[in-house]
Amino acid sequence: MKLVTAKDVNGVFVGLLHETGDKVLPLGLAEQKLSGTNNCPENMIDCISSGAQFIDYVQTVLNAATEDLFIPLSSVELLAPIPRPSKNIFCVGKNYIDHALELGSKEDIPEDILVFTKAPTTVTGHGKKVPVHSEVTESLDYEGELAIVIGKQGKGIKKEEALDHIFGYTIINDITARDLQFKHKQYFIGKSLDDSCPIGPCIVHASAVANPNQLDIVTKVNGEVRQSSNTEHFIFSIETIISELSKGMTLEPGDIISTGTPAGVGSGYNPPRFLKAGDKVEITIEGIGTLENTVGD
Amino acid sequence: MKLVTAKDVNGVFVGLLHETGDKVLPLGLAEQKLSGTNNCPENMIDCISSGAQFIDYVQTVLNAATEDLFIPLSSVELLAPIPRPSKNIFCVGKNYIDHALELGSKEDIPEDILVFTKAPTTVTGHGKKVPVHSEVTESLDYEGELAIVIGKQGKGIKKEEALDHIFGYTIINDITARDLQFKHKQYFIGKSLDDSCPIGPCIVHASAVANPNQLDIVTKVNGEVRQSSNTEHFIFSIETIISELSKGMTLEPGDIISTGTPAGVGSGYNPPRFLKAGDKVEITIEGIGTLENTVGD
Repeated sequence: MKLVTAKDVNGVFVGLLHETGDKVLPLGLAEQKLSGTNNCPENMIDCISSGAQFIDYVQTVLNAATEDLFIPLSSVELLAPIPRPSKNIFCVGKNYIDHALELGSKEDIPEDILVFTKAPTTVTGHGKKVPVHSEVTESLDYEGELAIVIGKQGKGIKKEEALDHIFGYTIINDITARDLQFKHKQYFIGKSLDDSCPIGPCIVHASAVANPNQLDIVTKVNGEVRQSSNTEHFIFSIETIISELSKGMTLEPGDIISTGTPAGVGSGYNPPRFLKAGDKVEITIEGIGTLENTVGD
Repeated sequence: MKLVTAKDVNGVFVGLLHETGDKVLPLGLAEQKLSGTNNCPENMIDCISSGAQFIDYVQTVLNAATEDLFIPLSSVELLAPIPRPSKNIFCVGKNYIDHALELGSKEDIPEDILVFTKAPTTVTGHGKKVPVHSEVTESLDYEGELAIVIGKQGKGIKKEEALDHIFGYTIINDITARDLQFKHKQYFIGKSLDDSCPIGPCIVHASAVANPNQLDIVTKVNGEVRQSSNTEHFIFSIETIISELSKGMTLEPGDIISTGTPAGVGSGYNPPRFLKAGDKVEITIEGIGTLENTVGD
């Protein structure tokens, strides 16, 4: 089950991607046409907060839906699955050994989880232009990452219960102004330029992912493979991330946690290969899809 | 003009503090009784977003209000002025030289602004208990800080225009788990335990503060003065903070920026004097008031 937030002439809606990937079922509108009612929660965070009831709802609408209720993906505008999160995006830093090494040395391999955040104003969708921000940075970089979407509120979550708190998975490009990241010591400023967090194209429901700690992840820039890894190389597993983050802090439905990036970012090359206007970045994660964005002027 | 968010039997409301400080005018209810209408925006963020129109509204209700429309502060529950910010709180780290030195050495005095965040789940109000979080930290610390509330959206804000973007000022106790702050390298985890960001008691409108870069700030623990300074000792002024933060990132109405703490935090003492259950922390800032919280079990 792949869910999207999209926009057309009727406004913003939550939809279900067709198996073919080229059509979308607008849930509320489809229900309206089928039964005259519309019980779809208003936005993705409300959908997620409805828990199992929402998943049952999607299944019911899907079972009743005829092919003509699907609309071509090409006729809608995809937004980030959660266009405006209710808090900053949580991001795990240096969660792959090879990436910690390419940014520094053995001393940079973390013994304890490292977490920073990106402001909600960074969020943008699949297919959107990412500003080059040349007025503030000379080293805009890409970071392909698997992201978790929290489904169930919790604090002090045990590792063995962590997966029960996940609604689903998506892809994040943790666009980073590398110069600002290090100049300001704490990463927040270098990680929070406007529209520097493409998310999407969809959220895959957790039931469709057998093991989130074993997914291929590939990032291409202008068609060239730059990052190619598997989440089995995480230093901190999905279960550890949720358990550590929720020690003393409540996680809430709709919270987004990006899990870190493997080696191959632009600053890992010698000389560095930072993003420039016109570059196309594609991040593909097994079982989720491809998040594609072009760097704008 | 001092504004509060409070709760009584009728629910949560935005109110105006009486000059005496012991009574509050519930704006919407007062208008309702005076004219039969209620045009008060629903919550503080909506009030702030209404800009000058809201300030005119408050003035109009106040001018018409009779003393009997005020209710005793003792009969309401004060909440944080913005009980649920729409993103993490922005926090400037090491913005007073003496505090940078007490945490480290000369090398810790920042040349560039250092910013981290606290999750919205940290927010709590004046008079509320702050959990001691003994299951996750052995070094809970206080940090008295002046906080800015943004009133007008902006990006790339020039220093000379920065003050125009401020709605008002409040007080923050940036409660910190000192062990977690340093163990996890990036500050976010140590700064984001539940209810570790008391805010209040009110927002003072910017028009009532002649110079935010010259305000006395005092923190007491159980009546003993621990921090005593003046915002004139900022490394980065209010104008610089807004200008630096908004480079490439849009600031929005209701955003809260805490400006850093002076010397005298618990970890600055030898031996350290961390918070324990039962401790009362009071932070007083000139022209705003006193934010008081007790550490719970």
